[in-house]
Amino acid sequence: MRASRFFISTLKEAPADAEIISHKLMMRAGMIKRLGSGIYTYMPMGLRVIRKVENIVREEMNRAGAIEMLMPVVQPAELWQETGRWDKMGPELMRVKDRHGRDFAIQPTSEEVVTDVARSEIKSYKKLPINFYHIQTKFRDERRPRFGLMRGREFTMKDAYSFDRDVAGMQQSYQIMYDAYVRIFNRFGLQFRAVAADNGAIGGSGSHEFHVIADTGEDALVYCPQSDYAANIEAAEALAPSTSRAAAGAELTKTATPGKSRCEDVAEFLGLPLTTTVKSIVLAVDAENDGKKMTQIWLLLLRGDHDLNEVKAAKVPGLANFRFATEAEIIEYFGTPPGYLGPIGTRKPVTIVADRTVAAMSDFICGANEAGYHYTGANWGRDIPESTVADLRNVVAGDLSPDGKGTLAIQRGIEVGHVFQLGTRYSQDMNATYLDEAGKPQLMQMGCYGIGVTRILGAAIEQNFDDKGIIWPASIAPFEVVLCPMGYDRSEAVKAEADRLYQQLTDAGMDVILDDRGERPGVMFADWELIGVPHRVVIGERGLKDGKLEYQGRRDVEATSVPLAEMAEFMKAKLAG
Amino acid sequence: MRASRFFISTLKEAPADAEIISHKLMMRAGMIKRLGSGIYTYMPMGLRVIRKVENIVREEMNRAGAIEMLMPVVQPAELWQETGRWDKMGPELMRVKDRHGRDFAIQPTSEEVVTDVARSEIKSYKKLPINFYHIQTKFRDERRPRFGLMRGREFTMKDAYSFDRDVAGMQQSYQIMYDAYVRIFNRFGLQFRAVAADNGAIGGSGSHEFHVIADTGEDALVYCPQSDYAANIEAAEALAPSTSRAAAGAELTKTATPGKSRCEDVAEFLGLPLTTTVKSIVLAVDAENDGKKMTQIWLLLLRGDHDLNEVKAAKVPGLANFRFATEAEIIEYFGTPPGYLGPIGTRKPVTIVADRTVAAMSDFICGANEAGYHYTGANWGRDIPESTVADLRNVVAGDLSPDGKGTLAIQRGIEVGHVFQLGTRYSQDMNATYLDEAGKPQLMQMGCYGIGVTRILGAAIEQNFDDKGIIWPASIAPFEVVLCPMGYDRSEAVKAEADRLYQQLTDAGMDVILDDRGERPGVMFADWELIGVPHRVVIGERGLKDGKLEYQGRRDVEATSVPLAEMAEFMKAKLAG
Repeated sequence: MRASRFFISTLKEAPADAEIISHKLMMRAGMIKRLGSGIYTYMPMGLRVIRKVENIVREEMNRAGAIEMLMPVVQPAELWQETGRWDKMGPELMRVKDRHGRDFAIQPTSEEVVTDVARSEIKSYKKLPINFYHIQTKFRDERRPRFGLMRGREFTMKDAYSFDRDVAGMQQSYQIMYDAYVRIFNRFGLQFRAVAADNGAIGGSGSHEFHVIADTGEDALVYCPQSDYAANIEAAEALAPSTSRAAAGAELTKTATPGKSRCEDVAEFLGLPLTTTVKSIVLAVDAENDGKKMTQIWLLLLRGDHDLNEVKAAKVPGLANFRFATEAEIIEYFGTPPGYLGPIGTRKPVTIVADRTVAAMSDFICGANEAGYHYTGANWGRDIPESTVADLRNVVAGDLSPDGKGTLAIQRGIEVGHVFQLGTRYSQDMNATYLDEAGKPQLMQMGCYGIGVTRILGAAIEQNFDDKGIIWPASIAPFEVVLCPMGYDRSEAVKAEADRLYQQLTDAGMDVILDDRGERPGVMFADWELIGVPHRVVIGERGLKDGKLEYQGRRDVEATSVPLAEMAEFMKAKLAG
Repeated sequence: MRASRFFISTLKEAPADAEIISHKLMMRAGMIKRLGSGIYTYMPMGLRVIRKVENIVREEMNRAGAIEMLMPVVQPAELWQETGRWDKMGPELMRVKDRHGRDFAIQPTSEEVVTDVARSEIKSYKKLPINFYHIQTKFRDERRPRFGLMRGREFTMKDAYSFDRDVAGMQQSYQIMYDAYVRIFNRFGLQFRAVAADNGAIGGSGSHEFHVIADTGEDALVYCPQSDYAANIEAAEALAPSTSRAAAGAELTKTATPGKSRCEDVAEFLGLPLTTTVKSIVLAVDAENDGKKMTQIWLLLLRGDHDLNEVKAAKVPGLANFRFATEAEIIEYFGTPPGYLGPIGTRKPVTIVADRTVAAMSDFICGANEAGYHYTGANWGRDIPESTVADLRNVVAGDLSPDGKGTLAIQRGIEVGHVFQLGTRYSQDMNATYLDEAGKPQLMQMGCYGIGVTRILGAAIEQNFDDKGIIWPASIAPFEVVLCPMGYDRSEAVKAEADRLYQQLTDAGMDVILDDRGERPGVMFADWELIGVPHRVVIGERGLKDGKLEYQGRRDVEATSVPLAEMAEFMKAKLAG
């Protein structure tokens, strides 16, 4: 491509609404243009990156045996009503009426449509397994769109859906997709991590998220450097401490802790480690019994330095639909407002669940259910009846790895892919069956597999940038190589060599842009460093006299002088490596 | 591709709602699947054709210097309000509100968005000309969606928009697109015709439609076999007859024509040619004068065998906003209901416009403004004052070509592309200006250029089918070659040769599908003839014994025996054309 036949539009300053680095750099590099809140035009420079991402995804999906199709953006409400998602999904689902007043959804995903295809097209076990995918425009009416392509409303997603005869088949299809995702993210040239994710009601280990590692990531990823254990924070199991509970050593003592309502403050006030404190979290569950509404109050106990993991709490039998208790409920059950709550001497009986760590503590500190007072020397069995024990907390760095092979570390990530074992979640509602060998209808076992195509761009930049701009991995860069001639319009020699090299590298299959705009070197260099092309070759009169060109990789501190005749081989080696 | 890794789903019968052949065959061949009225899932087989069409369009657009981008599907109403199209467009424009109640359009085209990009990105004449295009999902809420992909609601369109400094530049950009379209349609391998189209208010010759020729086409295309004149029926000029008006030879005679209200019936009743009759068409124009509403009544005269061209009528000065007169208005002005109207002795004065052909007639027949009576021997000047003369009718086959080089012929076509000189239609409303050399803001001159990507499929089939199914041109066929082994699962020799040939042709860059499903020959042949793959090679045990394979082109009546060793070269020659 010649720059004079392309559209390049860079900005010195990012617009004020761009909050994060990837958004700022994409706006400055002229990759995207805001059309409305969370809605962007992909400008020519940005679209090139999107197409490269799509092509890698497409090639690996095809290699994995998935079959491409294209499902509509505008989808009839009837299908969404069959699965209940028409009602369950809130305002994120963009709804529209046609001229006859019929309801439609603008697709955020396509489970309903693909399941409708499967139930009408797949009659026999002979047609299974099958995996359909498409790469298509999606819309989610986010409450607060932001961060450019990271949380947009209109975006491009690759979504695949596998159909199998049984659970074993589904798991195999899932593994094939998992492996394809690993290949895809490797080909992107991004540092990433696949982590086990919670898959809600279905249970099992049937869900993984793929995250691009970035300090600015929204999600906490848990992994074990000594093994291949990895999970997102919601799913990572916190083991019980390896040492068992010590015997009680101290007396239970009510101690004045005036104004110290937080564990941190109590520990400091008493001169004791935070790890000797226990915090009380009060939950409520509303239920109906013989038509009478009733509320159950639960007390969850966590060590003072630990955080509640709500996904884990919801898995405690009876807590599936918990909410946090109101202050009125707390006063009714504990006799005191929050700040000094504890398991000893509640006004009304509550159901206690202790986190695994708390269950192994002795001589700990907890609220005394009296404003301004805590107990020290509290002990299980003696002061508090042994209660239900469960994994209730987020893991922290240094925790034991659940696979027993080391300790956990935590890093930040940006979720860009998700593979999920759906089971019969959709096939049941939509009666998507096939006939087995005996001619008996059986529900299809499904999996779904998404990659946020446009989000990849933001994530890649969050991982790869410097103060000059973006640093694209070569496989998804808008161009692999930029040729910067010094004085293309002034020097015959420079123009001739630039044109020759452009032709040579292009013929060798490289994706090259020749900057023939006639801009000053400073402008040229700044533009291409901002845009993030990974390889740059400068063609200057002085170098040509010595038969030399200057190469500089986007991360290189200095340029390398390369003989004219060797440049093509040199670039080939750079791109291969 | 191996059929066992692809999705093939054919039907013996087309669904009842499929009215035309392309719709029926696409449904039967498993290319599309109906999701809702005018909304289709593109199944894997159909998507392959769409991608091939897209790629040809993309390659030629790029070659012509247009730059690809991608504009959003969901577009803010504000931009559409700037050009007035938010109000002007009827229910065809699909409108949607987001969670905050803000209005959006689901794009039917993108003039507003691209003009918004241009006005903010293009500041200087130095950035012009430029041509942006995208290939994107469109939605038009058609009143009566039908004919499968021919008149769908959701469809894929390539739309390009050129921006120029002046009219001469716009005309040059237009010509470049016109030439690109000719290359594109040639590459599709379809018989097509570019015809001049009316471009409404802008005038001039700045609009052409590209039609795929098909007997089933909705549009009438006018062309001159002796020259390169071509226009759609709306735009084709009807010249005045080459012979001038003969002198009056008959007396004006009121003749009883009881019950004969149509020209055909009158001519038959009187035993005279239909070409001696004149029909009367009454139009009304509503206007306001000093706040007072008033209606003007016009009488248009056409020869009995000719049809009114409403586009031409609207170009007669004063008739831009015409409507057909009501029966009450006709009785008020003519004293009689329709059926016996004419220009002689109207009750109230009306404005008469004669078609060029009528203006050259003498001794003609027209209504007498009295039920059951016509005049014969009517003549201009003597019986009717000479009136305004205009081209009011559709041309018919045999008319003189407007370029004076022969006579016109008419054929049917399906519109699949349109190039259009927009001028400042959008740049004016949206104030899209650039600074010229003198630093003065000037409105950009625009052109727009569409190709109905998904519609191409329907049009290609309407042109190329037989009683077995579709006959795709090789360039847009889902596969170029199908290999049909007889007993792939039974015969080692057949399997080995099929696999070898598959590898060889694939390596040679051909798009091959190997039917390894193990279906019976009859099923295999019927499937691929229905799907329309242009080249078929049969691998059978008997042939292999003689070192032969059987080739049959989709249009061939008989198979050709080809030696094994020559098949690759044979196929290469076939695909080369």
